[in-house]
Amino acid sequence: MSPSLLIDNIGQLVTNDPTVGCGPLGLVEDAALVLGDGVVQWAGPRHAVPQAAALERLDAEGRAVIPGFVDSHGHLVFAGDRTAEFSARMSGRPYTAGGIATTVTATRAATSNDLGLTVDRLLAEGLRSGTTTMECKSGYGLTVPDEQRSLRIAAERTDEVTYLGAHVVAPEYAGRADEYVDLVCGAMLEACAPHARWIDVFCERGAFDGDQTRQILRAGVARGLVPRVHANQLGHGPGVQLAVEFGAASADHATHLTDEDVAALASGTTVATLLPAAEFSTRATYPDARRLLDAGVTVALAADCNPGSSYTTNMPFCIAVAVRDLRMTPDEAVWSATLGGARALRRSDVGHLGVGARADAVLLDAPSHVHLAYRPGVPLVAAVWRAGVRMPTAVPLS
Amino acid sequence: MSPSLLIDNIGQLVTNDPTVGCGPLGLVEDAALVLGDGVVQWAGPRHAVPQAAALERLDAEGRAVIPGFVDSHGHLVFAGDRTAEFSARMSGRPYTAGGIATTVTATRAATSNDLGLTVDRLLAEGLRSGTTTMECKSGYGLTVPDEQRSLRIAAERTDEVTYLGAHVVAPEYAGRADEYVDLVCGAMLEACAPHARWIDVFCERGAFDGDQTRQILRAGVARGLVPRVHANQLGHGPGVQLAVEFGAASADHATHLTDEDVAALASGTTVATLLPAAEFSTRATYPDARRLLDAGVTVALAADCNPGSSYTTNMPFCIAVAVRDLRMTPDEAVWSATLGGARALRRSDVGHLGVGARADAVLLDAPSHVHLAYRPGVPLVAAVWRAGVRMPTAVPLS
Repeated sequence: MSPSLLIDNIGQLVTNDPTVGCGPLGLVEDAALVLGDGVVQWAGPRHAVPQAAALERLDAEGRAVIPGFVDSHGHLVFAGDRTAEFSARMSGRPYTAGGIATTVTATRAATSNDLGLTVDRLLAEGLRSGTTTMECKSGYGLTVPDEQRSLRIAAERTDEVTYLGAHVVAPEYAGRADEYVDLVCGAMLEACAPHARWIDVFCERGAFDGDQTRQILRAGVARGLVPRVHANQLGHGPGVQLAVEFGAASADHATHLTDEDVAALASGTTVATLLPAAEFSTRATYPDARRLLDAGVTVALAADCNPGSSYTTNMPFCIAVAVRDLRMTPDEAVWSATLGGARALRRSDVGHLGVGARADAVLLDAPSHVHLAYRPGVPLVAAVWRAGVRMPTAVPLS
Repeated sequence: MSPSLLIDNIGQLVTNDPTVGCGPLGLVEDAALVLGDGVVQWAGPRHAVPQAAALERLDAEGRAVIPGFVDSHGHLVFAGDRTAEFSARMSGRPYTAGGIATTVTATRAATSNDLGLTVDRLLAEGLRSGTTTMECKSGYGLTVPDEQRSLRIAAERTDEVTYLGAHVVAPEYAGRADEYVDLVCGAMLEACAPHARWIDVFCERGAFDGDQTRQILRAGVARGLVPRVHANQLGHGPGVQLAVEFGAASADHATHLTDEDVAALASGTTVATLLPAAEFSTRATYPDARRLLDAGVTVALAADCNPGSSYTTNMPFCIAVAVRDLRMTPDEAVWSATLGGARALRRSDVGHLGVGARADAVLLDAPSHVHLAYRPGVPLVAAVWRAGVRMPTAVPLS
């Protein structure tokens, strides 16, 4: 053990480890945290901190420390701007320009360097607000080379990479969706699989139906990818049930659910990943987190960063909306944005601050994690460590 | 004219001056802004910028510049914490502890130094998110000396100070509301008036009724204070009509309105100040901004920072919620958070960037003011000037 940093005098420490502290959050008051060799060396009450001297000591002065956020759903590889589309939608004006197709056109036209700079910018922005793990999907290329380069760019920069050739049918395949599905399952999959861990499908009316989703997931699994599904965002459909059937890590959105959908999630290992910033930014109906939680479903929160329907990287904002409008408690929302996200990515090393976890920690300029919902919109992330290394943040301590 | 700073290469400049640019926002694309002697020296298209050399030039690199936010409703002089009350409320658990009374007890017990530090902290926090004018009320003292010192502390630090002895009936006057009203109109007013510009009343069931509100406003006006009213927040009532009757600068909250209330506001000069973060943080019904705007009412947006029902200083957050849930357009919300707030404070020198205005400007790390709603929760305020002086901010430019 080589302890490099003792964070001392923590008013409230969220470990998400029930063996360390109280309740699901593993909450410890008047706590200390020891980071070293990139992992958590020790977490617990201050009076019991081991005597081995850390190289450095930081006095949290009674502030709260939580695990870094695990944002398990992001579409970061894109080009172009959809400000006008957003403004028109929120002003009640019709906007017929092409939605995802707009971004596809801009993304194909962009240089790889520019695409990489956008991913860098969004990852840095997320990191400043406490996100230490971020998933990243392709899905704005929709040709073999454009999907492949999107994944390569993502893989160079993020922890978790998802092949989403099945985002929508590529425009040049309009009216020939089954041919596009064959491409997604064939040459495109071959080119993309080496760069990705996950395969994802937008299973929705207007995107891919149940049979197409099944075909794509099956091909991805055969190629060694692990499934996750965009499911039941805009209406009822087979997405959630298919996700459970395939043992997907996560069914994302999960907004329009039947009792059978909820029962399927509760009976399986598939996490329901809720993306409230998407409903916020489209004035859509929010998912009912309470119903899922009360049924025993594991719930994650993610930001769904994308230029069309949810252009945010800010997990504290997602927590505040989840508490207000999804009827999660502040404790549940913080858990879902950290360990919930880790479950949705099948990661045991992030999302908590138990001994041996990656040393991803966030110091809040607040005495409690509850302030993330209690103080909506206020930047409270004062310091972020990833793998024990302090990252640049922006909020001066008060 | 002594120009000290040229902000050049502004992608979109919101001046709120229709003589300078397009529409109510006075929007100029490819713009420049010259600040000097603490005021706006020039604003307009870049190609027409006057040749007199500024001492300093800042290249906005295509980003947007807007006027500093004018937050016309804040309760910043308080002590104590209500995290547990918030958490219980949002978790559906009953919480019977005393709401405002909790804060009154803590505020009375606090040292003036500690109260001042809290105001300083919240003003600095607001400033970092672009708020360059902030109103501040008393109302957690509720004794003559405690109200007086609250206002003195506020007046030392903020632009606009409001006497709100009539926040609730002081606990020691329980059952003797009329005696408390006499105090508010008598000795307390005498002690407080020298420190305040405004008088405010919480006109609501459980606080002060129509007759009491009338008595208090009349006394305040006689003492030279200008009225503003907490009106129609929790239910229908006489607040809005009284505000218009008294020619109040603003009726704040304005959530539960009859057609007569809307007509009264439309016929008078009283601004309707909407406080969506309060409804956000209490899961209450949002006010209907669309109805007010369509009737021709002037609408302001403010943060209502207070430890009980809206513990935020963040105007971009209020804009995002106003667009999503109050059905304001992004343009309307930005106007209401800047010039709308100035109207609610009867200030002609702030809230816009016309020539001669106080040089309160905000550089966004975004190409458009629409991003304040399009990118919810993301800290976008990259630089703030107040009276031409650059203030500390926290967002590194991407």
